Amino acid sequence: MSDVVLCECFARDGLQHETHLVPTGEKVRLLEAFLGLGFTRIEATSYANPQVIPQFQDAAAVLRGLPRRAGVSWIATCPNVRGVERARADQIAGAGVDELSLLVSATDAHSERNLKRDRSAQWTNVEGMVAAGAGHFALSGVISVAFGCPFEGAVDPAVVHRDIERFASLGVTRVTLADTVGMATPTTTRAMFQRVIRDYPGLTFVAHSHDSRGTGLVNYVAALEAGIRCFDTSFGGAGGHPATIEYGGGYTGNVATEDWIDLLESMGMRTGIALDQLIPVARSCETLLGRELDGRVTRSGLNPLKQ
Amino acid sequence: MSDVVLCECFARDGLQHETHLVPTGEKVRLLEAFLGLGFTRIEATSYANPQVIPQFQDAAAVLRGLPRRAGVSWIATCPNVRGVERARADQIAGAGVDELSLLVSATDAHSERNLKRDRSAQWTNVEGMVAAGAGHFALSGVISVAFGCPFEGAVDPAVVHRDIERFASLGVTRVTLADTVGMATPTTTRAMFQRVIRDYPGLTFVAHSHDSRGTGLVNYVAALEAGIRCFDTSFGGAGGHPATIEYGGGYTGNVATEDWIDLLESMGMRTGIALDQLIPVARSCETLLGRELDGRVTRSGLNPLKQ
Repeated sequence: MSDVVLCECFARDGLQHETHLVPTGEKVRLLEAFLGLGFTRIEATSYANPQVIPQFQDAAAVLRGLPRRAGVSWIATCPNVRGVERARADQIAGAGVDELSLLVSATDAHSERNLKRDRSAQWTNVEGMVAAGAGHFALSGVISVAFGCPFEGAVDPAVVHRDIERFASLGVTRVTLADTVGMATPTTTRAMFQRVIRDYPGLTFVAHSHDSRGTGLVNYVAALEAGIRCFDTSFGGAGGHPATIEYGGGYTGNVATEDWIDLLESMGMRTGIALDQLIPVARSCETLLGRELDGRVTRSGLNPLKQ
Repeated sequence: MSDVVLCECFARDGLQHETHLVPTGEKVRLLEAFLGLGFTRIEATSYANPQVIPQFQDAAAVLRGLPRRAGVSWIATCPNVRGVERARADQIAGAGVDELSLLVSATDAHSERNLKRDRSAQWTNVEGMVAAGAGHFALSGVISVAFGCPFEGAVDPAVVHRDIERFASLGVTRVTLADTVGMATPTTTRAMFQRVIRDYPGLTFVAHSHDSRGTGLVNYVAALEAGIRCFDTSFGGAGGHPATIEYGGGYTGNVATEDWIDLLESMGMRTGIALDQLIPVARSCETLLGRELDGRVTRSGLNPLKQ
């Protein structure tokens, strides 16, 4: 039993913008290591167009290599109906994911840059993906830039609420609110999550922060205090948009898995993760990318104090 | 007017373990830049034995170069009575600091390794420094490993309370509680600071976290919520003990000034710092040390959203 549900995003969000194509076998070994640690939700790959994101051209091969385990969801992001059809074909061939995640952006400007469609067109796209995927896959929704947009600035929480309702109306009951470029604060995070938990008791909400301004753990603690129990992280903080100005620029890494797990455990929250293997796996992610990543406890060791 | 009082520690805590000896003129220019940003408390140097820490052999020369400004405290750490005597001689010669900070450790094991004396001997040393420095300098007390010790583990808050009372009995009214190797959590930080603020209303408490496990900002937000308004930070997170196992090992940097200021301002707290110059000064600290440091907003820019 654990007090929180963690989704490990290294193999998808973490690798998405890496130019080095990681060999399929190494991806599978890493995903098996995540499974071995005790993660029950793991982003495995993406059904993005391989011409656009070559890193995931081996989606089917990766999925063929993965063990199935009761209670464990392998997750892929999916950009369009063509992606759902590929996922369905792989599923029929015995290499399916359990869940597809479907993205919208809370602003048109971010939607156009990140998804190549304005919000209206992206919602039509999402409806098509739901029609193609429902009944075959669990479906989850992600609302990007929910706490602020690098192009449009402040985001009206009412827009986020309407997006949540739209996902719910499509039967999507798990919704991720993403602080895509680190513009949330503990105050705005707590307010947002307290309200959506109160207003949509039938939905499960997931926090997905980026550590662009060092506030990843701060905002996760605020979300935790607001009642959120589902969090996305990536080993070493790998991932996020590349450091190009069209995505808001600068450092935009994810929250580092090892640091969040260490903090949760030191606060007395059970994560269900095998702590003795946490840093070795974090190091294997660094080895895979050939560089030191941003996890602090990978350098300093786990906090010896537990409450 | 500002809502918080920030102490910039780069020129002392940040440089203490740098093997490259920064030229005096560069130190002075940097300290003037900190002053220009609006800091009212600035660690300028240390009266450590120059044979032990050569970085601060130019203490007197640095202090001679600094402008005096009403309401601004230039601060030096001081290890022993000999250090106070040097500080006093410099003061008489017109190059004095305003404040000396006096360290104790909450555990014998850390005291012996960091201060080369057990707690009892260090308290005798502190009493000698107070006798030599009182009336000439403002004196502040620092309690290291107040939230946990890498050698002894959990620290009894009663020990910290007795140390606070001992500082108070010596007339020291500003006391820093230091999480020296990042073992505090928001829970323990909040509990500690709420209690000392309640129990010692005549004292001013300062939070000094290290980001060893990525929890610097998390614990500062908890301290802020507990009522703390004084915080130590260092540009780029520079400083902390070196990465040697006798000090607890691994990464032990300070909280990055630029990230904490950005978070405070984005939460609507006024810091009194000139935000338009914050990142340029952070970059100049990187230039001085010849490497990229750990400030996130130095890469990503300040949060455009303010509450």
